[in-house]
Amino acid sequence: MTNIVFNHATVREKADMLTFLRLCSERGLQTVSIWGNEIAKVGETDALSVLHDFGMTVSGYNRIGPFVADFLDRAEAELERAARFEADHVFLFTGGLRDNEKDLGSARRRIEDLVGKVLERARKIGMKLAIEPLHPMLTGDRTVISSLSHANSLCEALGPGIGVVVDVYHCWWDERLAAEIERAGEAGRLFGFHVNDWLIPTRHLLTDRGMMGDGIIDLRGIYSMMRDAGYNGAVEVEIFSTDWWSRDPAEVMDIAIDRCRSLFSKE
Amino acid sequence: MTNIVFNHATVREKADMLTFLRLCSERGLQTVSIWGNEIAKVGETDALSVLHDFGMTVSGYNRIGPFVADFLDRAEAELERAARFEADHVFLFTGGLRDNEKDLGSARRRIEDLVGKVLERARKIGMKLAIEPLHPMLTGDRTVISSLSHANSLCEALGPGIGVVVDVYHCWWDERLAAEIERAGEAGRLFGFHVNDWLIPTRHLLTDRGMMGDGIIDLRGIYSMMRDAGYNGAVEVEIFSTDWWSRDPAEVMDIAIDRCRSLFSKE
Repeated sequence: MTNIVFNHATVREKADMLTFLRLCSERGLQTVSIWGNEIAKVGETDALSVLHDFGMTVSGYNRIGPFVADFLDRAEAELERAARFEADHVFLFTGGLRDNEKDLGSARRRIEDLVGKVLERARKIGMKLAIEPLHPMLTGDRTVISSLSHANSLCEALGPGIGVVVDVYHCWWDERLAAEIERAGEAGRLFGFHVNDWLIPTRHLLTDRGMMGDGIIDLRGIYSMMRDAGYNGAVEVEIFSTDWWSRDPAEVMDIAIDRCRSLFSKE
Repeated sequence: MTNIVFNHATVREKADMLTFLRLCSERGLQTVSIWGNEIAKVGETDALSVLHDFGMTVSGYNRIGPFVADFLDRAEAELERAARFEADHVFLFTGGLRDNEKDLGSARRRIEDLVGKVLERARKIGMKLAIEPLHPMLTGDRTVISSLSHANSLCEALGPGIGVVVDVYHCWWDERLAAEIERAGEAGRLFGFHVNDWLIPTRHLLTDRGMMGDGIIDLRGIYSMMRDAGYNGAVEVEIFSTDWWSRDPAEVMDIAIDRCRSLFSKE
């Protein structure tokens, strides 16, 4: 059976981190993806202690960014905290264009340079970085890295210690998808696979993502691309949705687990 | 001075086609882009007669599609009407995935075949077709042609009589943009250039486009790419916006003309 991981963001509105860990443990899930700001809310000592009590491990740690002003100092603190949680990788959230910045090409070069600077620090701490390209509708204000192709090229330029996470929501439309997943796989750079769905209609650019199976994304097809590219890791549920946030977290997780089991099997 | 063209959609909520033509004429604009359904509302005879009285010509004719059921028969009627209006090109609006269709690759092949079938009919009538790739957030329900790269490849495969229209809203985020505009220019395939802007935040996927200058798109930069690629045609204002639709059409057009004059000059 494919390993299922929940990203805390999926239920964060009604479940703090300690509740989230308990809900995962009750469902036999051994790995989680977590957020620095949610750790801060419950306290790092308690968060670590509950995590250890449940014998859980951390996949993704969210996050470093946005890349503004003195973020490099804070990046170091995030990397160190991620290391204390023994996370597999730390997400970069680069941010988009600056105020009055119009030249997207130069914005991308600026961000690429900063990713390189974070990577130097991450290597010293021994923590891997993950780039998650976001949907082109988020290029302006979330990240200027809008395709897996761009993320792959950036990783190639930077060398070891950095990889990509493929989120179906952000990449499903791209005619280059299969080729770019293969490219990332060949380089040993596929750090994660995030699932959710694209709803028709979509009512909000950030918070109207769907439960797997409720939308139009060919989830089985993209999972096959990942497997064909050598990905053996988990399927991570990450749904940003005012709809699902409003529901009972346990129910949301049970539905998501059912959907994952029917959609993603290794056989 | 760069030639400015209005697409009727920009003011269609408060100006029927005859009013729209008058407003353009009063502003010294000699070319318009029009919609078949708006012609139907005022009657083709009146629409043609007013167009001729003002000595106006038609750039784009909207549109053929979505590609469902018996659309090929209706496509022929649209092509013939576009010919009576002596339009420069007719837009294809392919539509997205069908109900329960998940395989985007096969959907794209299906749509590509249908574009070929429309092109056969268009060639007989002597009418050019235009593909306008739409933003990836519209892949599911508006068109599966989500990048200029895909549109260029499709045009190459199909041969003469079909080209592309670059709408900044749909393409601005793409790291391939300059290269793909150049590729289209080299092939003599740049039929049009649509302008508007990307607002932060964007509140609706279809109807929250901005007035040029109010958003974050590097309009001057993309216009330079077009000019460098040999494009000498008009700048066409096409803004789908509940905000701008609610305003006085004359005022909207005056603002848009001012913005175009300051942003797009040939010198």
